[in-house]
Amino acid sequence: MQHKGHLITFEGGEGVGKTTLIDALYQYLKNSRQDVIKTRAPGGTEIGQLIREILLNQHQDKMSCACELFLFLADRSQHVDELILPALKQKKIVLCDRFNDSTIAYQAAGRHQEEKWIEDLCAFASLHVPIHLTFYLDLDPELALKRVDRMKDRDRIEAENIAFHRKIRQAFHALIEKDPKRFVILDASLDPSEVFEIAKRHLDDFLETHR
Amino acid sequence: MQHKGHLITFEGGEGVGKTTLIDALYQYLKNSRQDVIKTRAPGGTEIGQLIREILLNQHQDKMSCACELFLFLADRSQHVDELILPALKQKKIVLCDRFNDSTIAYQAAGRHQEEKWIEDLCAFASLHVPIHLTFYLDLDPELALKRVDRMKDRDRIEAENIAFHRKIRQAFHALIEKDPKRFVILDASLDPSEVFEIAKRHLDDFLETHR
Repeated sequence: MQHKGHLITFEGGEGVGKTTLIDALYQYLKNSRQDVIKTRAPGGTEIGQLIREILLNQHQDKMSCACELFLFLADRSQHVDELILPALKQKKIVLCDRFNDSTIAYQAAGRHQEEKWIEDLCAFASLHVPIHLTFYLDLDPELALKRVDRMKDRDRIEAENIAFHRKIRQAFHALIEKDPKRFVILDASLDPSEVFEIAKRHLDDFLETHR
Repeated sequence: MQHKGHLITFEGGEGVGKTTLIDALYQYLKNSRQDVIKTRAPGGTEIGQLIREILLNQHQDKMSCACELFLFLADRSQHVDELILPALKQKKIVLCDRFNDSTIAYQAAGRHQEEKWIEDLCAFASLHVPIHLTFYLDLDPELALKRVDRMKDRDRIEAENIAFHRKIRQAFHALIEKDPKRFVILDASLDPSEVFEIAKRHLDDFLETHR
């Protein structure tokens, strides 16, 4: 399936600054008169928002790993079908906060599900939509969680222990090694304005070579 | 995995009288001092109830087939992990309104998903828990939907057209052919008290031979 638009995803652990970066790049592309939308997983659609509420509710501490996985996949399916594919067909740039890499990193590494199985499920759920570029914001989990604590109460997934978040970071690094051309690694310990400047240069290059 | 309890499922289209039959058998077993619980899919747990609300909402007509499938599977995982497996370990009889057969019939036949894939997903989601006995309530979809209309407004799945419901019935019949020993087929056009008497005799026989 060939689309004229671009699916650009933003990945990384909790508190690394994905939302801040996406907001800045979105505004930059808007100002450059690009046809761009920003969205997030879970929660990019009305149905996805209802799923997100179940997933992130602090009190759902009884949730089984497989239930969590299937809720993320339900959100993914709806997100791609209702929002992302139609946007790509309209040649839009889609900036997406988390996508399949997060599901694989969190479920396969954090929850001990079999990685190939999770990859197959993600591919099915996302209708095999190609991801054109992924920005990975890299940060030591201890620093990242300190940032989260300064901002708000931790949600159910943020409240996992530090060993869990270290495993997630290792899992992202392993995903990057398997498909290095798709990823841009950003040092998320830098000032957000610096992270933005670096990301912007990469994005400009990408859009220049993929017109 | 060997459990001492019994998982007994009730399957069939909309409006065939599953709930009425389960209520009657539940009361019968209670009166016989059996350790029994009744539950339903989707919705047998607190998380499942939230998922059920998303699934059956009439206004969610944008829901993609894959999203629907994964929501059913999320419910299934939570249901087995939190409620059904613990009950079986405590040697209880679990009466469950819909289970994997419904997911396979509705998704593979009604939504054109690949059947083997749906079976694998159901097995994974239900932690491969064995189903010991299944009552299938058989009824012509036109009669069944007339019953639904007399009782209430149709929900999102009930509102599908009659051809959809005919395909579901064929799919159930195909599942029974593949595993005939597990199923008891009940003629749901009979009076509910007759259906109950026939089911009760089968249940007594089953419990007698599986003590």
